Amino acid sequence: MRKIAIIGVGFMGGSFAKAIKMSFSTVCVWGYARSNASYYKLERLRILDKVEKNLEKLLKDADYVVLATPVYAIVEYLKKISCYLKKGTIVFDLGSSKELVEKSAKRFLPKEVDFVGCHPLCGSEKSGPQHSVSGLFKGSLCIITSSFKKKSTREVKKMWEKMGCRIVFMPAKLHDRILSSTSHLPHLVSFSLMYLVSFSFRNFSSNSLRDLTRISFSPATVWTDIFLSNQKNIVRDVEKFIRVLNKFKNFIKNKKRKKIFRLIEEINAKQKKFWKKR
Amino acid sequence: MRKIAIIGVGFMGGSFAKAIKMSFSTVCVWGYARSNASYYKLERLRILDKVEKNLEKLLKDADYVVLATPVYAIVEYLKKISCYLKKGTIVFDLGSSKELVEKSAKRFLPKEVDFVGCHPLCGSEKSGPQHSVSGLFKGSLCIITSSFKKKSTREVKKMWEKMGCRIVFMPAKLHDRILSSTSHLPHLVSFSLMYLVSFSFRNFSSNSLRDLTRISFSPATVWTDIFLSNQKNIVRDVEKFIRVLNKFKNFIKNKKRKKIFRLIEEINAKQKKFWKKR
Repeated sequence: MRKIAIIGVGFMGGSFAKAIKMSFSTVCVWGYARSNASYYKLERLRILDKVEKNLEKLLKDADYVVLATPVYAIVEYLKKISCYLKKGTIVFDLGSSKELVEKSAKRFLPKEVDFVGCHPLCGSEKSGPQHSVSGLFKGSLCIITSSFKKKSTREVKKMWEKMGCRIVFMPAKLHDRILSSTSHLPHLVSFSLMYLVSFSFRNFSSNSLRDLTRISFSPATVWTDIFLSNQKNIVRDVEKFIRVLNKFKNFIKNKKRKKIFRLIEEINAKQKKFWKKR
Repeated sequence: MRKIAIIGVGFMGGSFAKAIKMSFSTVCVWGYARSNASYYKLERLRILDKVEKNLEKLLKDADYVVLATPVYAIVEYLKKISCYLKKGTIVFDLGSSKELVEKSAKRFLPKEVDFVGCHPLCGSEKSGPQHSVSGLFKGSLCIITSSFKKKSTREVKKMWEKMGCRIVFMPAKLHDRILSSTSHLPHLVSFSLMYLVSFSFRNFSSNSLRDLTRISFSPATVWTDIFLSNQKNIVRDVEKFIRVLNKFKNFIKNKKRKKIFRLIEEINAKQKKFWKKR
């Protein structure tokens, strides 16, 4: 029986607990409750084999420690847990930006503990363990940012594959650059659009607006941390995005019909190719 | 038997033809084919009672004329058709920006012909009559920008209601201001996001990006016209949007954790209220 300890049993951590129990019969899943409120909530939800409020007890004899909190809390827990981990424990995280987390793991974890940076590309604008789903990881991509030469990485890889993930390895730096563009910027754009649109126009909104603002319900705790921890890439991508908007705007302002038409046609073609089933 | 003539039998016009035939048994729906190719396509699709290549024949004895082309083509057809219309014909359009269309109708149509500006708030990123659906208008809102004091407006209103629409009356100017923010800006944002994201990142894209770029497949013919015909509102809204993006960006750049957090929380709350079922 292997013991898995999850810190951060929210939507992602809760879904991980459900999925890992579905995929492996020989695991015992413990989860951390920071407060009495979350203790009783988690007890009631019956996602875990054991809910534990004491960090030391939680981590005692754990084979795997899963960090599923917002990014800066992952950093904090890497500091806090380092003294409780036994030799050979594998620590991995589910954070959405990876460079900061990997650096912190190197800095804070003892040498005899292995760290594997993971980011399963799935999620929800909903939050909390009550919304967690066992099939969340099925068919999604999981990016692993640690070296596949390590035995621990291969072990974690197998775990994700058993839960239905496809695996891609890449350096944390590249991960952060790509995700800034494919996920972090889209979230910032969605937040900004929701911020802008006048509340009094809500009766005249379309499905397009609904689709574009769905993820603007994504939790502030998670996204403040993502934006700050991937600051440089996001700032650069927002600036690039503003340049595209200005290009469009100037074409419209100067009635450049042909240029607008060609630009949209080009985008149409790219959209079709981009989302073509592979 | 009333005769309805549709000019522009694409996705919207085709859906209108199907819906009107479902809702009224006593109508005869004619559609205009500009070319041989579209003539044979429309014949094959069997959406219409008659496909007509001759504009004069199409409009002869028509009780209603529906303009369902892109906005500037509506303006062109208002010019072209004016000499063929009989007294008492009601002309209405389905265009996405209304001020230009209403002005053109006033300018080009003869006095004994009534014009009613309509915009059913539904659509698709797909185009062409082959994608048209009879239930498109069911449950959607239709904005009418002409005075409800006119008998013709009330007649057109009833037609939309029979097809399942809820009706709101408002001046064309207000319509264009609202739709710029709830539909036209979101499309421009979606186009820009699709333009920006690197094609090589496609394997690492999320559902969020997919949702945000769905409408970037919307046709260039339709959207070039919308952007140009609602130029002033859109340019102003893009500028406002860029200001919000810059605000976000500066908070991130300057590590204003609390400000980012509060901003997202505020947006979360607005999102929830905005999309709450009414």
